[in-house]
Amino acid sequence: MKENDFLRWIAAQLPGRADVPINVGDDMAAVRRPEARSEPGRGSIGDMALLKIDQCLDQVHFDLRVHSAQAAGRKAVNRCLSDCAAMACRPAAILLSVALPQTADDAFAQALFTGCRDAAAAFDCPIVGGDTGVWDQRLAITVAAMAWAHSRPVSRSGAKAGDAICVTGQLGGSILGRHMTFTPRIEDAQRLVALADIRAMMDLSDGLAMDLPRLCHMSGVGAQVELARVPVHADAVRLANAGEGTGTTTAAMHALADGEDYELLFTLAQPEWTKLQGSWPAAPGGCQITRIGTVTGGGLVLVDVAGMAGKWPNGGWEHETARTHG
Amino acid sequence: MKENDFLRWIAAQLPGRADVPINVGDDMAAVRRPEARSEPGRGSIGDMALLKIDQCLDQVHFDLRVHSAQAAGRKAVNRCLSDCAAMACRPAAILLSVALPQTADDAFAQALFTGCRDAAAAFDCPIVGGDTGVWDQRLAITVAAMAWAHSRPVSRSGAKAGDAICVTGQLGGSILGRHMTFTPRIEDAQRLVALADIRAMMDLSDGLAMDLPRLCHMSGVGAQVELARVPVHADAVRLANAGEGTGTTTAAMHALADGEDYELLFTLAQPEWTKLQGSWPAAPGGCQITRIGTVTGGGLVLVDVAGMAGKWPNGGWEHETARTHG
Repeated sequence: MKENDFLRWIAAQLPGRADVPINVGDDMAAVRRPEARSEPGRGSIGDMALLKIDQCLDQVHFDLRVHSAQAAGRKAVNRCLSDCAAMACRPAAILLSVALPQTADDAFAQALFTGCRDAAAAFDCPIVGGDTGVWDQRLAITVAAMAWAHSRPVSRSGAKAGDAICVTGQLGGSILGRHMTFTPRIEDAQRLVALADIRAMMDLSDGLAMDLPRLCHMSGVGAQVELARVPVHADAVRLANAGEGTGTTTAAMHALADGEDYELLFTLAQPEWTKLQGSWPAAPGGCQITRIGTVTGGGLVLVDVAGMAGKWPNGGWEHETARTHG
Repeated sequence: MKENDFLRWIAAQLPGRADVPINVGDDMAAVRRPEARSEPGRGSIGDMALLKIDQCLDQVHFDLRVHSAQAAGRKAVNRCLSDCAAMACRPAAILLSVALPQTADDAFAQALFTGCRDAAAAFDCPIVGGDTGVWDQRLAITVAAMAWAHSRPVSRSGAKAGDAICVTGQLGGSILGRHMTFTPRIEDAQRLVALADIRAMMDLSDGLAMDLPRLCHMSGVGAQVELARVPVHADAVRLANAGEGTGTTTAAMHALADGEDYELLFTLAQPEWTKLQGSWPAAPGGCQITRIGTVTGGGLVLVDVAGMAGKWPNGGWEHETARTHG
């Protein structure tokens, strides 16, 4: 079963609930305090918790033959925090579960924990609990994040036909190193929602070619993307020049299909995009934002660099079985 | 580094925070909504979320050569829910992370998920998100639970000298099968806090000999336990008769030292214990509760079956490196 099929099977197993307004299929789930509905003045969105779990496995998401325990811990936490960015929330707490290989000594365990703690501390987020075990298998790190819904959380499902489709940063080639060292776009997401009405947002973990269809599916819309507008990272150019990668060849296709960008993909109405452009970057060091296309009523269209409209590529990183289902 | 040493090291890395009133070292962490403090009438305990993460590893916590995927999933969720029982809360949401072995087929993944879902559904708790990956290692299941603090959460730190020390159920020998099939004491915990002022509580996962000292440490108290009063499970008798186990020999020592009872250990003032005895069981099917000793000002004393006060045993299940630190 392919990843998306398994996600659909799981979603079908889970009945809708009034206390879970955002469920499997978004970057984080939203859980509402049940009593909030019956107490006058308490039914506010402040009584919602956003939740996420994400795992990081040795020789899948990092490689201890190359990367340090500290770098692995940092990435594990930052992957989870990237989902907080995708919901435009700030993390309130991190939980940490670690299955250590038997070869791990005290220094290894402490370095791993330090990497996790420092990544969370960069966003003033405490590690509040955890679970550590030892086994004769490779390192597995699992991170759960909780956030309070301070304002309306930005889900994947709000995109509307006519919206501008935008991304932060540049895409592609993260395998050359950025997948271990990225900073979650939490601050940029806060600036985005402060400056404009962002209708839908997600983080790019499996590549634009795989992730944009997910956002469209959740919103019940289509999209047209102009390949020439997709911001290409220098690493994608390097990969293309080296002839490496996942079977794609051009830098633009790397930008479309490579995973682990951890950039934000978002949509907003055209007037809001115009307004946002006028006030961005909101702060020094604010990232690049680029409009790459337009939300449509249905279907997925990729306009190639020659201006020819064509089919959406099958690229992106679809795992053999499900990866992210919440 | 031994488990308790690693827990202390981690705790020392985490600064105290006003928004984390219960931190690493209890059964669940408590996270307070920061704004709750500054809004009149909003600083109530209802704005606290309780959080827990717990992992279940193949050939550590279950064994797929013996147990089904569904049984493994059920145990993984129930272990986490047992911590909800320990805090006397009801779970509001479960997150699920699974690292599947490459040999796992669709039926395996679906059975695993079904086991998880059914365990949560038994307490009307939804699975709200997850993460599934595949690797060439054995199955690892990680479960995170969130609960709302409806009333004062019962932590490990409230025990006072003179309190009665009590346990639910019978202890020991869970390795014969109960460690896979137990029901978390969520309903019994609800009845306990409804009927009496429970001052401190935890669930017994590593054995009374290991866990009671933890509760005492968190409360800054000591304990005297009478071995003759410890309720011995028939499985502990079976183990003792078979001469098996962890080096201990008598059934009573199995009850003291075996892990994975998933019973509740709690303390309450003597008058409250008298009151509780008069109204228990509160419902048909309510479990046995037994007073096994008394909280003291300091030190740990085990009164043996002959009535001789002696040193606390070194038994219990201390993992080579830390296991539960939150």
